[in-house]
Amino acid sequence: MNIAVAQSGGPTCAINASLVGVFRQALLTEEIDAVFGSINGIEGMIGDELINLKTIIRTNRDMELLRQTPSTVLGSCRYKLPSYEEEPEVYEKIHSTLKAHRISIFLYIGGNDSMDTVVKLSAYMKHVGSDIKIVGIPKTIDNDLPITDHTPGFGSAAKYVAATTQEIIRDSSVYSIPSVTIIEIMGRHSGWLAASTCVLRANGEEAPHLIYLPESDFSAEQFIEDIRKEMAKHKAVIVAVSEGVALNAENAGIEDFQSGATDVFGHKYLSGIGKFLENLVAKEIGCKVRSVELNVMQRCSSHICSKTDIDEAERIGRQALCTALDGNTGIMMYFRRVSDVPYAVSIEMTEASNTANLEKRFPVEWISQEQNQVTDAAIPYFLPLIQGEVDIFMNNGMPVHFQRPLQMR
Amino acid sequence: MNIAVAQSGGPTCAINASLVGVFRQALLTEEIDAVFGSINGIEGMIGDELINLKTIIRTNRDMELLRQTPSTVLGSCRYKLPSYEEEPEVYEKIHSTLKAHRISIFLYIGGNDSMDTVVKLSAYMKHVGSDIKIVGIPKTIDNDLPITDHTPGFGSAAKYVAATTQEIIRDSSVYSIPSVTIIEIMGRHSGWLAASTCVLRANGEEAPHLIYLPESDFSAEQFIEDIRKEMAKHKAVIVAVSEGVALNAENAGIEDFQSGATDVFGHKYLSGIGKFLENLVAKEIGCKVRSVELNVMQRCSSHICSKTDIDEAERIGRQALCTALDGNTGIMMYFRRVSDVPYAVSIEMTEASNTANLEKRFPVEWISQEQNQVTDAAIPYFLPLIQGEVDIFMNNGMPVHFQRPLQMR
Repeated sequence: MNIAVAQSGGPTCAINASLVGVFRQALLTEEIDAVFGSINGIEGMIGDELINLKTIIRTNRDMELLRQTPSTVLGSCRYKLPSYEEEPEVYEKIHSTLKAHRISIFLYIGGNDSMDTVVKLSAYMKHVGSDIKIVGIPKTIDNDLPITDHTPGFGSAAKYVAATTQEIIRDSSVYSIPSVTIIEIMGRHSGWLAASTCVLRANGEEAPHLIYLPESDFSAEQFIEDIRKEMAKHKAVIVAVSEGVALNAENAGIEDFQSGATDVFGHKYLSGIGKFLENLVAKEIGCKVRSVELNVMQRCSSHICSKTDIDEAERIGRQALCTALDGNTGIMMYFRRVSDVPYAVSIEMTEASNTANLEKRFPVEWISQEQNQVTDAAIPYFLPLIQGEVDIFMNNGMPVHFQRPLQMR
Repeated sequence: MNIAVAQSGGPTCAINASLVGVFRQALLTEEIDAVFGSINGIEGMIGDELINLKTIIRTNRDMELLRQTPSTVLGSCRYKLPSYEEEPEVYEKIHSTLKAHRISIFLYIGGNDSMDTVVKLSAYMKHVGSDIKIVGIPKTIDNDLPITDHTPGFGSAAKYVAATTQEIIRDSSVYSIPSVTIIEIMGRHSGWLAASTCVLRANGEEAPHLIYLPESDFSAEQFIEDIRKEMAKHKAVIVAVSEGVALNAENAGIEDFQSGATDVFGHKYLSGIGKFLENLVAKEIGCKVRSVELNVMQRCSSHICSKTDIDEAERIGRQALCTALDGNTGIMMYFRRVSDVPYAVSIEMTEASNTANLEKRFPVEWISQEQNQVTDAAIPYFLPLIQGEVDIFMNNGMPVHFQRPLQMR
């Protein structure tokens, strides 16, 4: 029989490692002939754009390289599968592609949108009496999937953010005048990644002095008050803020921030929260202030990925294939944490419908009463996820990436 | 006798390595008793704020840690020494600090402003008949100091920029729709750092497809033309642009860019060139486009520093002390390249006045005729500077930094 795998949603450092996990496990499974990759997520299934992975991943070195290459080697999509009632022909196209290539198992690596696809596709297969199994493999740097202890990709993002925040702390401390540095970190709806900067305390850093999350109760007025308090204690105040921090509606600034001024081309200027807070500090306090956006580097800086994350991403990929071979469908694999110290997780399965379209927010009990810090209780949760370094292949002083064959570019 | 050392200008990944070089060489020199560090560059000399380095750097491990810690452990300043005629009392204060601590040699690590200080101070010492030697040690990520083949700090910045640009290339290639990604790289007056992204070609990358420098003849109209041409060839077009790219004055955009719109607080909105070009592409082409600013990470990401850079920064610090002990003053140390392959440099000295307040621009012969690329001839210049990785001390999954003692924070 044949199997297929696809990648979906935003890139991470670990999504290729899960693909390698599926591929490696398939090589060990005698009954499996071809492993197909669907180009650009589910879009490849709809348009019958598949590639035989054995033609592009040829050696053990290829697998190792791919494990440490960021982003999605098979491309990705943001396509949301319509309901069967709305567009049955989409389902028929997918089914026809699967049948044409004698595919018995389809593994979908992605976030909560992708789990919605797993739910819908597996229901369709049951509905039409097909035996094809559909299994989801989680990934997202946002760490906002329910059920699972954490998501593959998050640990590498958190490791990059911790290392970089520490370097920005050093960079900010050089001049003799007081200053405020605001670091804007990804997370539209949940603050896991910004919150994870608390791990720096384990290495003796006091900063970030303030951490704001979408889950915290935020007002611009209180923010300025917080900054003033920290400036009385520290020369260089460091702030970590999630991009999704929601300004209190009663606050004067909100209208300005959300609607934005217009830029030179007449577009609404959608400044990030970092730039907005920078301007606020400049206006209200008037000290030296700057904002730094960690941008896409958070999700693609595989040169400092977490070995724990990459290894787990591969393991969950392997386990997903085994679980599908056991006859399961419509499920998502997840991590259950067995213990913090020594760190141990088991890999389990759950109905994909338990996670599809749902978000796991950062626990309010780990947010300080003042709504401007993460408590020490969160540190043992985060620390194991950033442990270990992958031995990166280097050439000419630069990391080597797995290069997609020309026909795929 | 005693010696003193100070750090000045913007932080880099290598400026502490030069300090370690001075310190290590001093430990090997019998006639030297104390090594003082001046807090916040020359400001510490004016205000008599010195610290005995032996009290903060106590072990070999401290030295190793400091070598791989970014930014300036002694703090920094942007203070420009006035002329003796304007403010003789400043010179008298410095001289009095040097005498009070029996300092015979003062080594100043910095960029071209700092070399101006070396010129002025050494002239003053001669003028008042003092024997105190003043020697400059170059550093800047901008690589824009004349005479020297390259500057300590540049290689690490270039290594970070290359690795990160490559990761952004991967990140940009995932979706099926055409896109443009603009990476804004430091360099106000010279484009060395943006130009150095050409090294990715040595690893088989085609991108960045376009590279724009302050030294290139740039017009917004031609830029859009260039983008259109590259979009015909590549699905995901990658552009590297120096922050200091100067828009052609005849171009319609220039007024908008330089004056900026006003932000929500009524400040002039000084968008970077990256954001400006992003808006331009959105307006003129209307495709998916984003800009990424590498920001301060370029100068402080020591977790991926260049071993060649760190080792050379230490060597030039050691050599500076030896040269001062030989009786030289008013000079700057520099690298002379002996050969590209195998890479070899010698460390030489030149009058500091040959570099003070001067800038070395990127050679126009290494800019393509179309003014939008760097030619392959530049690659052998850049490649040796990013070679090798430092074995970074890790703890809890994060790099360990040398921590300044509490009294210095």
